[in-house]
Amino acid sequence: MRVKAMAVMERGGPLVPYAYETAPLGPHDVLLEVRACGICHSDLHMADDDWAITRFPLVPGHEVVGVVRERGREVAHLAVGDRVGVGWQRSSCLTCPDCLSGRENLCSENRGLIVGGHGGFASHLVADSRFCFPLPPGIPDEAAGPLLCGGVTVYSALRHAGMTSGQEVGVVGLGGLGHLAVQFAARLGNRVTAFTTSEDKASFAARLGAHRTVVVREGERPRAERPLDILLQTVPRDPGLAHFLDLLGSDGTLAFVGVPLEPIPLPVWALLSKRRRIMASPIGGRALVAETLDVADRFGVRPVVETYPLAEAQKAFDRLRENRVRYRAVLLP
Amino acid sequence: MRVKAMAVMERGGPLVPYAYETAPLGPHDVLLEVRACGICHSDLHMADDDWAITRFPLVPGHEVVGVVRERGREVAHLAVGDRVGVGWQRSSCLTCPDCLSGRENLCSENRGLIVGGHGGFASHLVADSRFCFPLPPGIPDEAAGPLLCGGVTVYSALRHAGMTSGQEVGVVGLGGLGHLAVQFAARLGNRVTAFTTSEDKASFAARLGAHRTVVVREGERPRAERPLDILLQTVPRDPGLAHFLDLLGSDGTLAFVGVPLEPIPLPVWALLSKRRRIMASPIGGRALVAETLDVADRFGVRPVVETYPLAEAQKAFDRLRENRVRYRAVLLP
Repeated sequence: MRVKAMAVMERGGPLVPYAYETAPLGPHDVLLEVRACGICHSDLHMADDDWAITRFPLVPGHEVVGVVRERGREVAHLAVGDRVGVGWQRSSCLTCPDCLSGRENLCSENRGLIVGGHGGFASHLVADSRFCFPLPPGIPDEAAGPLLCGGVTVYSALRHAGMTSGQEVGVVGLGGLGHLAVQFAARLGNRVTAFTTSEDKASFAARLGAHRTVVVREGERPRAERPLDILLQTVPRDPGLAHFLDLLGSDGTLAFVGVPLEPIPLPVWALLSKRRRIMASPIGGRALVAETLDVADRFGVRPVVETYPLAEAQKAFDRLRENRVRYRAVLLP
Repeated sequence: MRVKAMAVMERGGPLVPYAYETAPLGPHDVLLEVRACGICHSDLHMADDDWAITRFPLVPGHEVVGVVRERGREVAHLAVGDRVGVGWQRSSCLTCPDCLSGRENLCSENRGLIVGGHGGFASHLVADSRFCFPLPPGIPDEAAGPLLCGGVTVYSALRHAGMTSGQEVGVVGLGGLGHLAVQFAARLGNRVTAFTTSEDKASFAARLGAHRTVVVREGERPRAERPLDILLQTVPRDPGLAHFLDLLGSDGTLAFVGVPLEPIPLPVWALLSKRRRIMASPIGGRALVAETLDVADRFGVRPVVETYPLAEAQKAFDRLRENRVRYRAVLLP
């Protein structure tokens, strides 16, 4: 069928109306009618070809909420009319040890939805049903999108950094990722310290459930009331490792979900005395996506969104680029 | 009593005969007659005051094997005549959450044996009985010393990096630490790849149980046959993180036990795709010291040592400084 989309035609170019014909459905594919699509920083990176993997025209969008309108002949677990979500991942090999152990996100053959394929800034989307996730009815369309990429990214990182409950969790940065991380950590029974550079975000973090907010000023050493078990770095730059590692208690973990493009200085001795760890975590496997949605539903984790009509996608892109989105932008048809 | 020792009288100076009087035993102290003392790189660092914490005269030595000759009034778990070992740690507060959870090595008040006190390059040593470890009879004097600091350091790091069995374990460097790490990992049912810069050490690693050895040449990218679960960095310099992190499989951990004094460049993206981790691990808590000795005893892990009379400690120091010791030097009375 003919899909009406918004696409970037060349590196760094604007989003313009663009139409394309879908290929026939593969046996595991579904055709989705898009109901909402969140906008993630990765969409900007792809539009700017920052990772040198973009093919143009690019239809961005990988936080897609849609309703199944057609399905391939092998699709049994989804019915026409089901509301599902699609996140960053388009596919993986499904046979390697990573895939077999629920780590499809680490599969060497994993593919991004908008890497070599079109995304959700569109009326419709063809997606692999094995990477479509049924959405709990309690989560509205515009809230589900950001949970599918940003949400699972922070939830999976917190879990793999060892988050249980009763812990001290720090979150650096209060954007699309950070404002979800604060909610997940706080609502699952942890004490949260939010680190931000802006006063207005600090008071917002408190409203989201952060127990303490720290406004970090350039060159200043941040402080925490108690040693942190986990510190989640959501901003893709060097937080100043020597200072932030010192906030971690024994066996504490600093987890990057925002990843700087250049190497950053690592003071190994700052890991040593308390046996601290550093990790980086990309999205989440399929079981974790389902768990993220389930936990968000049951514990009331909701992104705070600005909505835009699909036709005004460029306006949302501009605001994201200017760091003015509070806190996730979502396109509606 | 009067202790005959070898001491460094000033920063970087030679080891010379030195005698001192012991203070009266505290309630938890024991007086040990020294039977053997291993030499560790940390002894050199302390002699050179590399960490700016040395008090001179310094009697080095923190891999001490001794026999209890006297005990303080509160000491009930050790008897006169018992053979015990003392490692890097002199004491800790024994009341903080770290101490209560068997992580005395991470206690903020932990003190090193030779930091503000005299060590085992001596005829006798006064030590806190709570940091003296009964030695399994199967481990000879000259083998026990290096297990008490180097041995527990690598064993604890491997365990905290997640070592179980059936894993792929890499060991970078084949000195005092590395040659013990190869044995622990291999004898506990793992497949070991040893990385070294020297051909003779490569063949030695194979004799110790390494299944594969890789001679790493300057500027060359190291290779492993299979993705590693754990990579233990025993050499205190930058291994070239971008290359070595790529050897790790999904959820793999690079653990530093040799710690560079300067920050090293960390390519965070090399952690991301496979959710890898970096940690650094200092010695081990008391339970881990006991476990190290027990495992070494039962599974036949033994340091390969060169022995020297205490009076020739300087000769051993010189060889260590020249990187000529194969693989751990031990002083005998």
